[in-house]
Amino acid sequence: MSQKTSKDAIYHPFVGIPGLPFSEAVEVGDLLFLSGQIGSDASDRLVSGGIAAETRQTLANIRAVLERHGSSLDRIVKMTVMLADIGEWAVMNAEYVKVFGRHLPARSAFGTSGLALGARVEIECIAAR
Amino acid sequence: MSQKTSKDAIYHPFVGIPGLPFSEAVEVGDLLFLSGQIGSDASDRLVSGGIAAETRQTLANIRAVLERHGSSLDRIVKMTVMLADIGEWAVMNAEYVKVFGRHLPARSAFGTSGLALGARVEIECIAAR
Amino acid sequence: MSQKTSKDAIYHPFVGIPGLPFSEAVEVGDLLFLSGQIGSDASDRLVSGGIAAETRQTLANIRAVLERHGSSLDRIVKMTVMLADIGEWAVMNAEYVKVFGRHLPARSAFGTSGLALGARVEIECIAAR
Repeated sequence: MSQKTSKDAIYHPFVGIPGLPFSEAVEVGDLLFLSGQIGSDASDRLVSGGIAAETRQTLANIRAVLERHGSSLDRIVKMTVMLADIGEWAVMNAEYVKVFGRHLPARSAFGTSGLALGARVEIECIAAR
Repeated sequence: MSQKTSKDAIYHPFVGIPGLPFSEAVEVGDLLFLSGQIGSDASDRLVSGGIAAETRQTLANIRAVLERHGSSLDRIVKMTVMLADIGEWAVMNAEYVKVFGRHLPARSAFGTSGLALGARVEIECIAAR
Repeated sequence: MSQKTSKDAIYHPFVGIPGLPFSEAVEVGDLLFLSGQIGSDASDRLVSGGIAAETRQTLANIRAVLERHGSSLDRIVKMTVMLADIGEWAVMNAEYVKVFGRHLPARSAFGTSGLALGARVEIECIAAR
C-alpha cells in the first residue's frame, strides 16, 4: 500500500477494496481521521444479524484501521454514530461499550434516512495519532 | 472528577450523570471535542417548550462544558446542528445567534430521522483549547 | 473582509452574503474547518439540475473557500456528505471523484431528513492549513 503525502497530511488508501472514493484514514497534525465504517466484511458485504452484529463488525473494522496506522481504540477522541433507526440506539450502545476500557471518546449519535449499502449503522472516528 | 489520560488525549467524564457511554469532552492537541449535547437539565430530562427552549438549554450545557475545561463559547471552532425537523431551523437559529459575540463558528446543520431522548436538537462542538 | 481572531483561532466571515450565522471557515492549529456548503450560486440560490449540478456547485464553492484561505482541494483531510436522499449517492459520487487528484480525503456520507434551502446535498470539509 503506497502512502500519498501532501504538504502536511498523509493519505492511506483503503485496504483490500480498490476503487473506493476515499482514503481509509488521513493523518494530519495530532489527529488521525477515519472514513465512516460500516459492518462490512473482507468481501465488502454487510454481515448478517442486524444492528448488534453490524456494530461489532464496524468496531472491528475501525480497530483494524487504527492499528494499521499506529493508533488504537484506546486513543479515539471522537465518534459519530449514524443509525438507520434511532430506535436501535440501545442495542448499538450495548455492543459499543464492550470495546472501550478506561477511555470513552466524546460521541454524537443520530438517526439518518439511509446509509450506504443499506447498513444499519455507520461510525466515524477521530483518534490521536 | 478524575481525568483519564492516554498518550496525548485527556478524557473528561460526564458531570452529574454517571454511566453515560462517552466523555463529555476530550482534549487533544489544539482542540477540545465535545460530545453532542441536547437540551437536558441537571436531572437528565429534556426541558419542555420545544425547539426554542431546547436550543437555549443545549447551548447552556455546551457553555458549561467548555468553561469546565478552560475554553468558552468565544473559542468554538465548529458546530454541527442536528435537528429532528429541518423545518425548525429558523427557530433554532434565532436562539443560536444570541449567544455569540464577535466569533461565529463554522457550522453545518441537517435534519435527522430521530435523536436521543426524543430531543428536537442536538449540537456537537469543537473548540480551541 | 476583516478577520476576527480569538486566542488561537482565526474566523473568516462569509464572502458576498452578509448576515449568515456562521463563518465560512475557521483556522486553528493544523486545520481549516469549513461550514457546510450547498450548491448555491453567488446570489445565494440553489443551482437547478438536481443532485449532479448541486454537487458540482458545492465542490466549486468549497474550492473557492479553501483557496481564499491558503488551502486547496488537494489538502482536504475529511469530507462529510449529507444527502437529501441516500439513493442519490451514486450520482453525487460520480461528480465528487472528478475533482480529486492523488489525494482522496477520508469521507462519511448519510441520508438526512432535510437540508437548508431544500438542497439535495450539503458537504462539510476539514482541510490541512
